[in-house]
Amino acid sequence: MALDKDKIAERLKALQLSICAAIEAEDGEAKFQLDQWERPGGGGGDTRVVEDGKVIAKGGVNFSAVYGELPENISTALKVDSKSFFATGVSIVMHTQNPFVPIIHMNVRYFEMDENTWWFGGGIDLTPHYVDQEQCDWFHAQLKAATDKTDPSYYDRFAEWANSYFYIKHREESRGVSGIFFDRLNTKSEKRSKDEIFDLIINVGEAFAPIYTHLMHINKEKPFGELEKAWQMHRRSRYVEFNLVYDKGTKFGLDTNGRIDSILMSLPPETGWKYSNHWPEGGEEMKTEQILRTRFVPKV
Amino acid sequence: MALDKDKIAERLKALQLSICAAIEAEDGEAKFQLDQWERPGGGGGDTRVVEDGKVIAKGGVNFSAVYGELPENISTALKVDSKSFFATGVSIVMHTQNPFVPIIHMNVRYFEMDENTWWFGGGIDLTPHYVDQEQCDWFHAQLKAATDKTDPSYYDRFAEWANSYFYIKHREESRGVSGIFFDRLNTKSEKRSKDEIFDLIINVGEAFAPIYTHLMHINKEKPFGELEKAWQMHRRSRYVEFNLVYDKGTKFGLDTNGRIDSILMSLPPETGWKYSNHWPEGGEEMKTEQILRTRFVPKV
Repeated sequence: MALDKDKIAERLKALQLSICAAIEAEDGEAKFQLDQWERPGGGGGDTRVVEDGKVIAKGGVNFSAVYGELPENISTALKVDSKSFFATGVSIVMHTQNPFVPIIHMNVRYFEMDENTWWFGGGIDLTPHYVDQEQCDWFHAQLKAATDKTDPSYYDRFAEWANSYFYIKHREESRGVSGIFFDRLNTKSEKRSKDEIFDLIINVGEAFAPIYTHLMHINKEKPFGELEKAWQMHRRSRYVEFNLVYDKGTKFGLDTNGRIDSILMSLPPETGWKYSNHWPEGGEEMKTEQILRTRFVPKV
Repeated sequence: MALDKDKIAERLKALQLSICAAIEAEDGEAKFQLDQWERPGGGGGDTRVVEDGKVIAKGGVNFSAVYGELPENISTALKVDSKSFFATGVSIVMHTQNPFVPIIHMNVRYFEMDENTWWFGGGIDLTPHYVDQEQCDWFHAQLKAATDKTDPSYYDRFAEWANSYFYIKHREESRGVSGIFFDRLNTKSEKRSKDEIFDLIINVGEAFAPIYTHLMHINKEKPFGELEKAWQMHRRSRYVEFNLVYDKGTKFGLDTNGRIDSILMSLPPETGWKYSNHWPEGGEEMKTEQILRTRFVPKV
């Protein structure tokens, strides 16, 4: 059977379910709630959200498959002529109870205008409230392993892409320790078959659950107090700034009258902007800030 | 003495001090902390911030007077040729402890490129967590009284301007109950002398303290519980969305490498995005939401 858009959507929907199951199992208490929605112009989605889990404070795993007429501002922005489109993807953001469990983001997506005009995009990136070099090295090594299966040059290329993407310009800070990011991959750009590129997407998607459940597992019992919680609120506020000011997916969603609750499920359940934050001299908070200002360099 | 830029800046600085004093007096506990800063390219500012007051949870009254070379992206955006600029203004945002005390925003500003190329801008707008028709009517009546001194047609014109400006498009909601907003007022646009337009700016600036201290006074002792606090966090999250996605002053500041802490002092000390908020059927929360969706119409 040829790899058509329905098969891609079906496979991504299965990916969504397996990820939700893995996170629920590691959390122990979290139960994803399904929020199904339809898009007036065509298609819809299954937004699966967990709130107040034992490990996950707020998390969303969104699947969507939408189609219809491409708004003119979008076709101009994408520099394409076609008038109709199909888009499917899985999008994830997890915010945690324990500040030692990192925030994570994953996205895999497919966009098609006609048989010959299509591309894949996606990536995984990590935003630890506290940067632990060893854990972040391990995280990057997993991403390298996942992309090496398709092409050993991909990790470097996609990591560089993520470095320039996940940057909060007005703060002169990285959002987190980066990861991989890629967009508009197709036969022409990759000199690979559509099946091979789809395999890459699925490898990235399937890497997500083992990576994140491991990071949940090794950090979820760590003790923390008021300082760590205040620092977490502070790091989350920077996450909000990135998503509302720079994130292209968010902007695309807001500009195209996407489903707001699903687009902004990435925002944290609690955060805030204190004017005068004071973090202990030489403490772990300042070390993380320093790393984000100079950019995290993984040893992989 | 002719009305030159230094005189304008001096007068606005005095306005800042009188506003801080009035808010401190009404709050009873709040003490503004001065944070002085210099701008590498020229000028600087006095940011005055209060946190954890009795009524004010976080508030900023920022004065700045900056000058230097106009960045090319700005001169293009403003459609001006000049290479140097001077800008001074007072900018205020107040977030409150008690959800029945509204959030308020005020700004008065002067921008000059040369003797013949200058303009004034500004406005006051109110974002109540709970819309009280009578209070909001009174608020609008005060704005009308302040602008009527210069021109009885101004209130309608500036209120309309505020209505279209303070709108959260992706939520299909107003930010609050609006107020007045105006920009690029000069002799040519207003057929008035520079002194007369400056008087308008000062009348608006001087209207602020009596308006807001009254609203603090009549609401600050009202009892509230968890529901009202949760609703306040929710309304604040919409305030963040407006400021980071739409507000031109914020965008201008971020794009021109302005002083980030002063630009983003507008953001609330605590907020959050719950996925599934449930507000009581027929309650005050839903009434306010309905008003923001259909737009508040003041009786003035």
